[in-house]
Amino acid sequence: MEIKVVKDILNANEQIAERNRQLFDSNKVFTVNLMASPGAGKTSLILETIRGLKEKTRVGVIEGDISSSLDAEAIGKEGVPVIQINTGGECHLDANMLSSALSNMPLQDIELLLIENVGNLVCPAEFSLGEHKKVLISSTPEGDDKPFKYPLMFNIVDAVLINKIDLLPYLKFDTQGFSQSVRGINEKVEIFPISCTTGQGIQEWASWLLTQMSRR
Amino acid sequence: MEIKVVKDILNANEQIAERNRQLFDSNKVFTVNLMASPGAGKTSLILETIRGLKEKTRVGVIEGDISSSLDAEAIGKEGVPVIQINTGGECHLDANMLSSALSNMPLQDIELLLIENVGNLVCPAEFSLGEHKKVLISSTPEGDDKPFKYPLMFNIVDAVLINKIDLLPYLKFDTQGFSQSVRGINEKVEIFPISCTTGQGIQEWASWLLTQMSRR
Repeated sequence: MEIKVVKDILNANEQIAERNRQLFDSNKVFTVNLMASPGAGKTSLILETIRGLKEKTRVGVIEGDISSSLDAEAIGKEGVPVIQINTGGECHLDANMLSSALSNMPLQDIELLLIENVGNLVCPAEFSLGEHKKVLISSTPEGDDKPFKYPLMFNIVDAVLINKIDLLPYLKFDTQGFSQSVRGINEKVEIFPISCTTGQGIQEWASWLLTQMSRR
Repeated sequence: MEIKVVKDILNANEQIAERNRQLFDSNKVFTVNLMASPGAGKTSLILETIRGLKEKTRVGVIEGDISSSLDAEAIGKEGVPVIQINTGGECHLDANMLSSALSNMPLQDIELLLIENVGNLVCPAEFSLGEHKKVLISSTPEGDDKPFKYPLMFNIVDAVLINKIDLLPYLKFDTQGFSQSVRGINEKVEIFPISCTTGQGIQEWASWLLTQMSRR
């Protein structure tokens, strides 16, 4: 019974995700679903990406959170359209929540939509939103064993950003070992070491995004 | 329909949690449910706690993970009984998973049971296990805004451990502001700044645990 309900929910989600995808494509909006643990740097990355791409593309942002609108307020100051979704306890965004938020997003005015999912390495991996790319931020203080602990998340993403590399001198984190573990789970994944504090690696990530957008 | 199913699941969980609690009490085992984001330091804290209390009490450990048994292996080397629960995709432990694991735990041989929940600040907050105390580890690199983002988790716990204080010189983290935010959500919570790397604060945490055990 419980299993059937879960399957029904996931199937319904896929159908709405497909409709979201059609909406993005008809508006020529490239969409990225950003996932990470709490505090890995999702909002900081969005801020750095907006700043890095300001003169190259028009960005919009959807902020997913259990509660609060702190992140949306910070992003709004950058002068880009931003919509906050409060999930009210749900531990992930789903396609339906996104669909409701999209009615308030001026899709015709943007080319790149960055979606910040709820901070969680488990459930967001199971719910498609209709995005073009799924991206995971894994930060160095979380430790280099995360691919073994959350294999589904590492398996389904197109890129992994290793954030907070400015803290490497103070941590036991084996960047090479981590990257090997990630590729063991997901052969084709792109890996970018970055720091939203120092700006290191942000340009490489932004260039990759632009290339992905131009290929569509 | 979906809401009714969720309510049924939570009610059933409460009943099993109550049975777990009776089992703990009849065996005079004090039980702590440890929750945190991925990589906040749950396993490191368990290792430090075992070392700190080795001569004062007999500890057992239950390790909850989506997959892998890395953490259980690390803890097994300390010579304490340890049982691994792999949730197989579920983003939290529930009372039934714990109940099954308990049949393999020698409760008559231990006095303190530390349960490591799945790394997640959302769903573990909703599922009682029958524990005596709920404890949250929030690590400094996650940022000092976490109480606003995950208020339910901060609200339901008996203690918050601020881990990785050795990294404070390299981060923007306002310990006093964080503590005030936590107390704004949860007046009676105990707060312990700690570092599992340097050992700072571990003794205060271990003493608090012993006091809680002696009061029962």
